[in-house]
Amino acid sequence: MNYIDQLLLENRPTPDDDKRYLSIVEPILEKIRKFCNSKGIDADPIVVGSYAKGTNLKNGDVDIFIRFDRKYKTQYMEKMGLEIGRSLFKEPVEKYAEHPYIMGNVDGVKIDIVPCYRINPGEKKISSVDRTPLHSEYVKENLTEDGKDEVRKLKLFFKVLNIYGSQVTVSGFSGYICELLIIQMGTFESVCSYFSGLHGRMILPPGSKYTDKFTSPAVLIDPCDSDRNAAAAVSLQSLSTAKLGCRIFLKMGQEYIFENKGGKFLNVEERNTAIRVFSIPKPDLIDDILYPQVVKFRDVIIGILNQGGFQPTSSYIDTEKDISVLIECDHAIVPNMVIHQGPSVDFENALDFMKKWTGIERFSGPYIVGDRLYVGVKRECVTIESCVRKNIETFDIGKNLNKYKDELEITDPLRTPANSTILKKYTSRYFPK
Amino acid sequence: MNYIDQLLLENRPTPDDDKRYLSIVEPILEKIRKFCNSKGIDADPIVVGSYAKGTNLKNGDVDIFIRFDRKYKTQYMEKMGLEIGRSLFKEPVEKYAEHPYIMGNVDGVKIDIVPCYRINPGEKKISSVDRTPLHSEYVKENLTEDGKDEVRKLKLFFKVLNIYGSQVTVSGFSGYICELLIIQMGTFESVCSYFSGLHGRMILPPGSKYTDKFTSPAVLIDPCDSDRNAAAAVSLQSLSTAKLGCRIFLKMGQEYIFENKGGKFLNVEERNTAIRVFSIPKPDLIDDILYPQVVKFRDVIIGILNQGGFQPTSSYIDTEKDISVLIECDHAIVPNMVIHQGPSVDFENALDFMKKWTGIERFSGPYIVGDRLYVGVKRECVTIESCVRKNIETFDIGKNLNKYKDELEITDPLRTPANSTILKKYTSRYFPK
Repeated sequence: MNYIDQLLLENRPTPDDDKRYLSIVEPILEKIRKFCNSKGIDADPIVVGSYAKGTNLKNGDVDIFIRFDRKYKTQYMEKMGLEIGRSLFKEPVEKYAEHPYIMGNVDGVKIDIVPCYRINPGEKKISSVDRTPLHSEYVKENLTEDGKDEVRKLKLFFKVLNIYGSQVTVSGFSGYICELLIIQMGTFESVCSYFSGLHGRMILPPGSKYTDKFTSPAVLIDPCDSDRNAAAAVSLQSLSTAKLGCRIFLKMGQEYIFENKGGKFLNVEERNTAIRVFSIPKPDLIDDILYPQVVKFRDVIIGILNQGGFQPTSSYIDTEKDISVLIECDHAIVPNMVIHQGPSVDFENALDFMKKWTGIERFSGPYIVGDRLYVGVKRECVTIESCVRKNIETFDIGKNLNKYKDELEITDPLRTPANSTILKKYTSRYFPK
Repeated sequence: MNYIDQLLLENRPTPDDDKRYLSIVEPILEKIRKFCNSKGIDADPIVVGSYAKGTNLKNGDVDIFIRFDRKYKTQYMEKMGLEIGRSLFKEPVEKYAEHPYIMGNVDGVKIDIVPCYRINPGEKKISSVDRTPLHSEYVKENLTEDGKDEVRKLKLFFKVLNIYGSQVTVSGFSGYICELLIIQMGTFESVCSYFSGLHGRMILPPGSKYTDKFTSPAVLIDPCDSDRNAAAAVSLQSLSTAKLGCRIFLKMGQEYIFENKGGKFLNVEERNTAIRVFSIPKPDLIDDILYPQVVKFRDVIIGILNQGGFQPTSSYIDTEKDISVLIECDHAIVPNMVIHQGPSVDFENALDFMKKWTGIERFSGPYIVGDRLYVGVKRECVTIESCVRKNIETFDIGKNLNKYKDELEITDPLRTPANSTILKKYTSRYFPK
């Protein structure tokens, strides 16, 4: 048996699992129907997501949407949605996506209760959750019985590659994308062949006329809404990982993906580079809001280090506890002198450059090389720490993070045991991990 | 009185100088004529160069060409040229340009005796020295009496800017170029205005149809031979220096060029850079042969240092004693780890890259960033010295220098008093010096 079949066997729900889920979900649907009837609300519950479509993995969540008639105002729909949701669980938790919704737990099964509007295919949606029931319908109608396990295999494979899920921290392939890929291509192996042979962007259906309309690395036209790219959240990195992962799987052997055949790494201390962890407190925000700001925070620091001459070569983000960004540079210290390139002598401002640097404290020049002026001037900051602290003030690192600039901590994880976790995560990177 | 007039006054030959030169040159011409008559050689002496054209500076050399009839074979012409030359001086010295020639000294005046063929304008020349008498004729016919001092001013100004002379170490403006510029533009000030306002290449006459035919930074069609660019030897650096020098002269004030208004430089020790001098023995060759090889030697080392990650920022060549190339780098030591960029995942060889680096001793990866693979590998050489010594073997540093690779010395001039001269020359660079 190969690795992927083995994985499927371990993660496909058993008939007993199915019975247990049914015994949990049915009573909830019944309660919602009763609630609506008793209050005269024109709304009905519908199970959506992978459980509804039969593509669910063991111990998955259940998504139940309550579809309200479009006559209701959004405020009312949201209010009633929360009220119904709260009535279903002992310990309901309020969450927020496009609308507020309720998360609950019954016998270890996580259940989301999400209000939305009832719409038909082609009808103008009011918010993006309204489309989810249409997705479920489409998949149920078009996915074969055999296809369900193929979807599960694809999901499990993408999980191994760390590219399963559309959440911003993964920016990978959603369950719905996996289902559409199997509907279009038939089997897990066919999808693997597709990615293995793919050059450049993913454009589906092939030869799609939407190539120009959608500019992201992956384009998959939503069969329920041709104005929508269902793969908009897939990053270049995730698409690349899918391509290489599938190619390795088909051509090099599955063990390269499923076992760590990478061998051992040389000791990080021998790198003789400058590794620093830049940490700020983590505000209580959902990933969709927080993560892009963390990326910005990282990119700002990398930009500063680049400009400062420290030659950052790679980085790693860890938001598990606080916001920590590890950046590795070639140098912890740069020279006091930096060569400053002036204008070409062809430009009028060459004279301004001469005037400016004549008489000012400097190491050398102005002198000409080729057709440009140069001067050797004193560098303001010669260490990573001083350079970042001095320059970060002038940058925007995200509206929820800017207030933490003063609390920025810069540590050398080789000398700071508290940062050993992020250092270990960073130094053990090996495809596809 | 301004600086340039002062310079002219100091460097223009006096009437007494003229008399003295005449009393030296006339007897030599007479001796040559007698020699040729007595041997029945169809050849006559002609004074060429700046002395003949009246554009000479004080204590200049005198060039006397002996024009042979074209019926003579080159070998005979060269032999007789040397014989005549030797008969003129107490201590004749044989030199070599296109033909061998004799250099002598009479009462402190350096005199070159150069054999050539007698040709008329438009006639096919046999070697480039044959054209020199035509240049003299052209200048004598077209340069006004006032123009002679204008030429002298231009020469003196270019001398101050270190761009006077076509020899390869200067790659600047020859006396003939200065004369043509004054003939075309009238005065020193006009030439200054021309360079001050020049953007991009120098193309003379303006709008010349030769722009495409000649690709060097400066083009000045030789009026004696429209197939020849008289300014072919002018480097981009020298042209740029002329532009900026003239602009400063006209717009910032002459004192910026004639006095060192640059102020003091910070101490070189404070730069905290890595300065190294790379020295090899100097073979006994003329500059035209040697210098291009020295430039190659320098460029090879800079290339090696760049590749090695040491970030060379500037350099300086000194061939006064041995061949010494000073190169300043940002770093004397680079990390043990270097990030090696692999192919895009789109290419077939991405799998080869994975296979190659799987199991091999390394620091990190392979991992994907964007659509490319990376791996952190061990660097072979981490010091300037080891990197240059290891890699120079594989490079051509010029056919006359290759044999000295084994004698390459690498020193830190801050710790090597013997190299203080080149260090001082290098660190005192300030436009236009």
